[in-house]
Amino acid sequence: MKEIKIFSPASIANLSCGFDILGVCLNDIGDEIVVRKTKEKGIKILKVTGQKLTLDVNKNVAGVSALALLKETNVDCGFEIEIHKGIKPGSGIGSSAASSAGSVFAINQLIGKPYSSKELIKFALEGEKIASGAAHADNVSAVLLGGFVFVRDSLNFDIFKLNNPIDLAFTILHPQIEVKTSESRALVQRPVTLDKLITQSANLGAFISGLYKEDYNLISRSIKDVVIEPIRSILIPEFEKLKEISLSNNALGFGISGSGPSVFAMSKGLVNAKKIGDLLKEKYRELGFSFDIHTSTVNEKGIQIIKIK
Amino acid sequence: MKEIKIFSPASIANLSCGFDILGVCLNDIGDEIVVRKTKEKGIKILKVTGQKLTLDVNKNVAGVSALALLKETNVDCGFEIEIHKGIKPGSGIGSSAASSAGSVFAINQLIGKPYSSKELIKFALEGEKIASGAAHADNVSAVLLGGFVFVRDSLNFDIFKLNNPIDLAFTILHPQIEVKTSESRALVQRPVTLDKLITQSANLGAFISGLYKEDYNLISRSIKDVVIEPIRSILIPEFEKLKEISLSNNALGFGISGSGPSVFAMSKGLVNAKKIGDLLKEKYRELGFSFDIHTSTVNEKGIQIIKIK
Repeated sequence: MKEIKIFSPASIANLSCGFDILGVCLNDIGDEIVVRKTKEKGIKILKVTGQKLTLDVNKNVAGVSALALLKETNVDCGFEIEIHKGIKPGSGIGSSAASSAGSVFAINQLIGKPYSSKELIKFALEGEKIASGAAHADNVSAVLLGGFVFVRDSLNFDIFKLNNPIDLAFTILHPQIEVKTSESRALVQRPVTLDKLITQSANLGAFISGLYKEDYNLISRSIKDVVIEPIRSILIPEFEKLKEISLSNNALGFGISGSGPSVFAMSKGLVNAKKIGDLLKEKYRELGFSFDIHTSTVNEKGIQIIKIK
Repeated sequence: MKEIKIFSPASIANLSCGFDILGVCLNDIGDEIVVRKTKEKGIKILKVTGQKLTLDVNKNVAGVSALALLKETNVDCGFEIEIHKGIKPGSGIGSSAASSAGSVFAINQLIGKPYSSKELIKFALEGEKIASGAAHADNVSAVLLGGFVFVRDSLNFDIFKLNNPIDLAFTILHPQIEVKTSESRALVQRPVTLDKLITQSANLGAFISGLYKEDYNLISRSIKDVVIEPIRSILIPEFEKLKEISLSNNALGFGISGSGPSVFAMSKGLVNAKKIGDLLKEKYRELGFSFDIHTSTVNEKGIQIIKIK
């Protein structure tokens, strides 16, 4: 195997009740990454299309994660990377995670898979750190493991997949404003009352129970955020209105995707998700805002191989 | 049916990672309660044995919960109650919950079961409020529903049972000092950093996942408390020593039972639990402290009927 082309998907982190803890992997939206073996050692980023991003291997997240992998691995070749960005940086649906996880996934394939997907998380996290200023593992884990993921402890990589009730689907609205993860994170660093801690963690625990019991009603009651959303939602135009539209049209939940500005509605079934997509689109057009919109089921597999040479 | 005798068990609330959220029902330790129909309307508490407690129906938790039930229910008789306390008040293993849940369970049986066990929680909570100054539903729910219970929202009674891996067992050490729940609650009312919120709720979510996956290792990694235990454990003589003994002898976890002063070790299997019991006993004897010790598997059924007349 000399060359591999992969699809590295977008993901939603936090999912309202699980700040820095929960992630879910999406379908259809994502980056395409080609990695080729080279005789010359080291990593080169040949080109990035779709978005303007640096080719500097020490600054581009895909380069940083790849370098972290190479540092620990004995290989007698190098790699050149081409990135076709399908996800906009700063959108809040795991743009940096898709690239940083994608490059290490691809290299791992090219060198005979010495690492499991779970073991690749630590390399991908090095890229994520560069992008957001913090090593939050929810997005990269979702991309590498697929499905719903739970990060118990990102420092010790205590991360696992959760049960995935088959019928869940997401609508993602990306307002065309940029919110930098690092700035958005700074905003929420304040103490929380014990009552809020109880409410927030009760919702997280109940959400997890809902996933295992496949109890959509319980999932819906618990996918709520009393800590971060009240602060961050202020940055998102018409957040409350979008939420109201979604929840009154059968959404099980509505919240901020990662650090925003993207928002998500979670529904039972793709039909509901698409209907909500149409309504949110209509509302944002009416208000004259620019936006992207996506709908997706849960991607149970994570990164997928498109072509091997 | 004119008379019923029931066994109303002890329970462990909080379970380290689920303050005011988690509860588990125990076997063998508990109160016995006899309730008899009387022609005269109203509630009378005839006697309490085993502990010195008031017979005043407006002050005894079993009376308060029974009155709450009667207030909502149309019955043309009254009830007299005898309570044989097997649980010491102030021990931290749900003494007030056993009595307040027990009386309403018994009355519900005598009047033809108009309420489900879940519906009885709200009446039992009225008794619990009197005892602890707050309506925390973890103990009464564990007693009424059995097994592991999850309180998502005690105001709206959003409470459910969790999966119960068959092999879990508990050791409970009750140091003979009294810690009032109301005082112990006051101690912990301080703001929490976002980092601690994340760690604590990640542990709760992971513990729930562990119960559903029946993953004892994950359960063990997550049954931890970074918020309440560091404050409350100071009140418990040799807490750290007891914890060390338990964890170095195969305990999956160790923590404060409810608001203390009882502590619990959770183990895989009753044999391990009993061994830890012996070691804790030895340590407390060596130090010259007075104590009670219990071992128990999980009581999946909750309150049990002993005799009906």
